[in-house]
Amino acid sequence: MAEPNTIPFDVLLARVENIFVRHGVRPESAKAVAHVIVAGERDNCKSHGIYRIAGCLRVLAAGKVDPLAVPEIHDNGKAVIEVDAKGGFSNPAFYAARDLLVSRAREMGLAALVIRDCLHFSALWHDVEALAEDGLAGLSMCPSYSFVAPTGGKEPLLGTNPLAFGWPRPDGIPPYVFDFATSVAARGEIELHQRAGKPIPEGWAVDRDGNPTTDPDVALDGAMLTFGGHKGSAISTMIELLAGAMLGEFMSKEAREFMGGTTLLPRHGALILALDPRTFAARSGRDPIAEGEKLLTAIGAQGARLPSQRRFEARKKALRDGIVLSDAELAQLDEFEGVTAC
Amino acid sequence: MAEPNTIPFDVLLARVENIFVRHGVRPESAKAVAHVIVAGERDNCKSHGIYRIAGCLRVLAAGKVDPLAVPEIHDNGKAVIEVDAKGGFSNPAFYAARDLLVSRAREMGLAALVIRDCLHFSALWHDVEALAEDGLAGLSMCPSYSFVAPTGGKEPLLGTNPLAFGWPRPDGIPPYVFDFATSVAARGEIELHQRAGKPIPEGWAVDRDGNPTTDPDVALDGAMLTFGGHKGSAISTMIELLAGAMLGEFMSKEAREFMGGTTLLPRHGALILALDPRTFAARSGRDPIAEGEKLLTAIGAQGARLPSQRRFEARKKALRDGIVLSDAELAQLDEFEGVTAC
Repeated sequence: MAEPNTIPFDVLLARVENIFVRHGVRPESAKAVAHVIVAGERDNCKSHGIYRIAGCLRVLAAGKVDPLAVPEIHDNGKAVIEVDAKGGFSNPAFYAARDLLVSRAREMGLAALVIRDCLHFSALWHDVEALAEDGLAGLSMCPSYSFVAPTGGKEPLLGTNPLAFGWPRPDGIPPYVFDFATSVAARGEIELHQRAGKPIPEGWAVDRDGNPTTDPDVALDGAMLTFGGHKGSAISTMIELLAGAMLGEFMSKEAREFMGGTTLLPRHGALILALDPRTFAARSGRDPIAEGEKLLTAIGAQGARLPSQRRFEARKKALRDGIVLSDAELAQLDEFEGVTAC
Repeated sequence: MAEPNTIPFDVLLARVENIFVRHGVRPESAKAVAHVIVAGERDNCKSHGIYRIAGCLRVLAAGKVDPLAVPEIHDNGKAVIEVDAKGGFSNPAFYAARDLLVSRAREMGLAALVIRDCLHFSALWHDVEALAEDGLAGLSMCPSYSFVAPTGGKEPLLGTNPLAFGWPRPDGIPPYVFDFATSVAARGEIELHQRAGKPIPEGWAVDRDGNPTTDPDVALDGAMLTFGGHKGSAISTMIELLAGAMLGEFMSKEAREFMGGTTLLPRHGALILALDPRTFAARSGRDPIAEGEKLLTAIGAQGARLPSQRRFEARKKALRDGIVLSDAELAQLDEFEGVTAC
């Protein structure tokens, strides 16, 4: 028997979609936004699940995202496709351009999608998983808010700049997907340590003078650090350049200045690359997906986990048994729907 | 007055080129190979400088690289260009296709270059710097030999898989360039510790059972680790997939099997992406290079060093004052040239 607070995926999706429609979001955009939020909840990514609804509603209430924005595609038939989110959420813009990106990548071998002027709140694995469903490898990246200092520095210039990659696997096997922040930890983790009165691990942050700190207050006032030392710092800088400067969109520092703080979700652009393995491998006579399996199954065979493996296991369970929410989460859904809980 | 062992860049270039010609390498390939070696020496990257000549001559003597190979370009006018190195060195293949890659990236917005079946020994910054000279952003990656275990694993499956990125800067300023192995340390560094009888730092390697080790012998018998924990491991896996499986070329494990060991330089493919910032930024009305400078100058202003900064400083000095070699290095050049030193 299902637990009392269990909701089937489709039912939760419809409820979340309805919340956004009731808050004035264009139905097609509400569908896209609800999908990524409920998919996050389904995959047990709680920080990208229904927890995000409140943040989206706050940015709507602040007038910093256009609920009626209709994504506008600009395509000149080359390998770079642009979609202008026109100040709306990023996800409807991605889904509006997805099919065109897939067909262009197949035609050209690879193609890029530029998302302009979007309110960005979701994980990036949605994008690369969508491409993997169509047999494409994908890379997705975007800036965020400047919370992170470059290695050897002290002032926050870089964002937590996520990077995601997807690679298709044979039928029935979830794709190889990673999606992580290039900061060593999430800002929320430092805030959790602050609330708990606990020191943060060494290597997470520096104070205003660039000295290492384990004090969460000092860290939040100073700067976070990137993963992997100077190598992670270099990758984070690359993301600022490719997904900010190169697109003529905000880098993380300007995104922070534009929003006048960091309490609201950030607005900037995003860059997604789609590569067609069958085009790249054609002259080799090899099957690139079968080749990839040699590596991916060997990783599993030696007892190492693939990234996203826990997420795919949670997904399987949620789609079979439904999504379990807490009483507080259900009450908040009711509240957002404008229905007073009994 | 110049030190006695100082050689001007051009003179050293001519000598190294001559060494390869004398060892049977096609003149155009000898020029390309000599260029990357002498450029490494010029930039004070000693591990990629004239030290590499011996390794190249060994692989020639072993018949594992074709000295007369003429790179063959395959181009169907799309966004993916292929150059088959035909078992020759990678560098002549890159230079043969470079102009086509640049013009295709400008025309399409982005383009990829696949290098097939090459003997690869050079750093990747040569490729991305060459693209930056033409105003393009570039990404370059390749597999190597399987020395590295994925996070949570114990068997060497991944290569030290280098990743390089270049971004053009305004006239007179060297580009933003990083180029690093995705292993936490170079294999040579572990060997240096072994010879010195010193333990290696924690986090560099695991034994055959996947347990952490600081013993260089145990490490060389076990597996190296990636930089940045699971994030670096995910990036290294991505490089295997994109620059190995996707191209239908060797991944690091197969490269090792093909060469029957790791004493010779590896043979595999390489992937280079070229992106034209002016195309990507066009609709924004912003100058992407000027935007990038806001970030790069701010990194410098807070006292942080940019990657490659030391290399560019060494280059400036070497081009002005000449390249200083040791007596032993000069004697070895004489020996390779077939001239007995007095």
